[in-house]
Amino acid sequence: MVGKNQIKQIKSLHQKKNRWAEKAFIVEGYKTIQTLLDHGLTLQWLGGTADQQHRFFVDDYQVLSAQQLQQVSAMTTPPGSIAVFAMPHPGLLPTQGWVVAVDEVQDPGNLGTIIRLCDWFGIADLVCSNGTVDVYNPKTVQASMGSLARVRVHYTALNTWLNQTNLPIYGTVLQGQSIYELVWPEQGVLLMGNEAHGITEENVSVIQNHITIPPTGQPAAESLNVAMATGLCLGALRHPAKG
Amino acid sequence: MVGKNQIKQIKSLHQKKNRWAEKAFIVEGYKTIQTLLDHGLTLQWLGGTADQQHRFFVDDYQVLSAQQLQQVSAMTTPPGSIAVFAMPHPGLLPTQGWVVAVDEVQDPGNLGTIIRLCDWFGIADLVCSNGTVDVYNPKTVQASMGSLARVRVHYTALNTWLNQTNLPIYGTVLQGQSIYELVWPEQGVLLMGNEAHGITEENVSVIQNHITIPPTGQPAAESLNVAMATGLCLGALRHPAKG
Repeated sequence: MVGKNQIKQIKSLHQKKNRWAEKAFIVEGYKTIQTLLDHGLTLQWLGGTADQQHRFFVDDYQVLSAQQLQQVSAMTTPPGSIAVFAMPHPGLLPTQGWVVAVDEVQDPGNLGTIIRLCDWFGIADLVCSNGTVDVYNPKTVQASMGSLARVRVHYTALNTWLNQTNLPIYGTVLQGQSIYELVWPEQGVLLMGNEAHGITEENVSVIQNHITIPPTGQPAAESLNVAMATGLCLGALRHPAKG
Repeated sequence: MVGKNQIKQIKSLHQKKNRWAEKAFIVEGYKTIQTLLDHGLTLQWLGGTADQQHRFFVDDYQVLSAQQLQQVSAMTTPPGSIAVFAMPHPGLLPTQGWVVAVDEVQDPGNLGTIIRLCDWFGIADLVCSNGTVDVYNPKTVQASMGSLARVRVHYTALNTWLNQTNLPIYGTVLQGQSIYELVWPEQGVLLMGNEAHGITEENVSVIQNHITIPPTGQPAAESLNVAMATGLCLGALRHPAKG
């Protein structure tokens, strides 16, 4: 059986500072764990309830009691299996292709959805401002549904990088060119802002192409959720409209 | 001050059966309440904490104690004001234009996001199967952010309506024509399925046009969230791609 110290150690990964000190993070549920394994991420620990063991072809599956599972899980209703993976190193900041950049996104679910969208639309790199929510937050990991294995997530001083990159910068603002009328180039940065405040002032100033998702008609809400807006921009960028 | 019976009556609207018996629903937060008022929905009751009163130009604002607010609110962190509105009647089932239909969507947040998307893309009618989550669920109302005032939401025996309508039916399935290559007609039904099981079998059989959102590359997750998929389809439908 799993000892108290091990439980304590896994549980410590609920905290951002411990995750980054250990360079490790928690993943829950068979499907997501399997996806990360399939993509070659390094497994450090795997366990769960006895009835889940047969799903994994791993020698050292650690059987947990229901109570222990509840202790290590970050979810209200634990799916039954839980793993600790080593954080993959994202490598150097991207210099080509289409890149999504997020400026202070705070909601873990939104960041997870954006990672899933990057994967869906073949975006290999996501660049996050240092103040963006932690990608290894259990809720982000959950929402990303395994796409974390396929998207390199970088944290950096975003303004410095945006000033240095040779890629053209496209930022979503209230008054910009319609994403459906734009001639999208081969590569660039799609910059998305914080849920409440949008793109920070210092980063607005480095946008070369101000873009907008135009509504059809006059909706009651003035804007879309940042993850939905990212999805619509990526759809338009990968499949340009007739105008 | 507000009496116990009134508190009890408002709180009863947390339950679907009471909402439909009373034909009334709860809305929380200044912005959403104001949007519904602006669009002419019928207010039945308005109250909240004393410091929120100045935001509303209504004579009979009912001041609640913090404890009373917590009792009537459906949210963990109540925004401070709460209203009861009469359910608007959606009128007859639509016969023209683009219509979104949802088949057994279960997550209140997803349904709310879909209503917001309908509003954004100028879709006047949303047709829900009778087994779809209640649009007047407080979480759906919250996620719809006032767009409920502009989209007519119908509940019906979906299969019967789909069999009767003259509108062409477009349904999202795993193997279909790309939404970016399709010649979209002037009007039709966009049919979206349940989060886990997709479109029910009886409704798959009435789809005339099988459509798919093609990924760019090979994503780890095989599908998108139903609200995101609805957004991408509506984007492609309103702004057809060059192919």
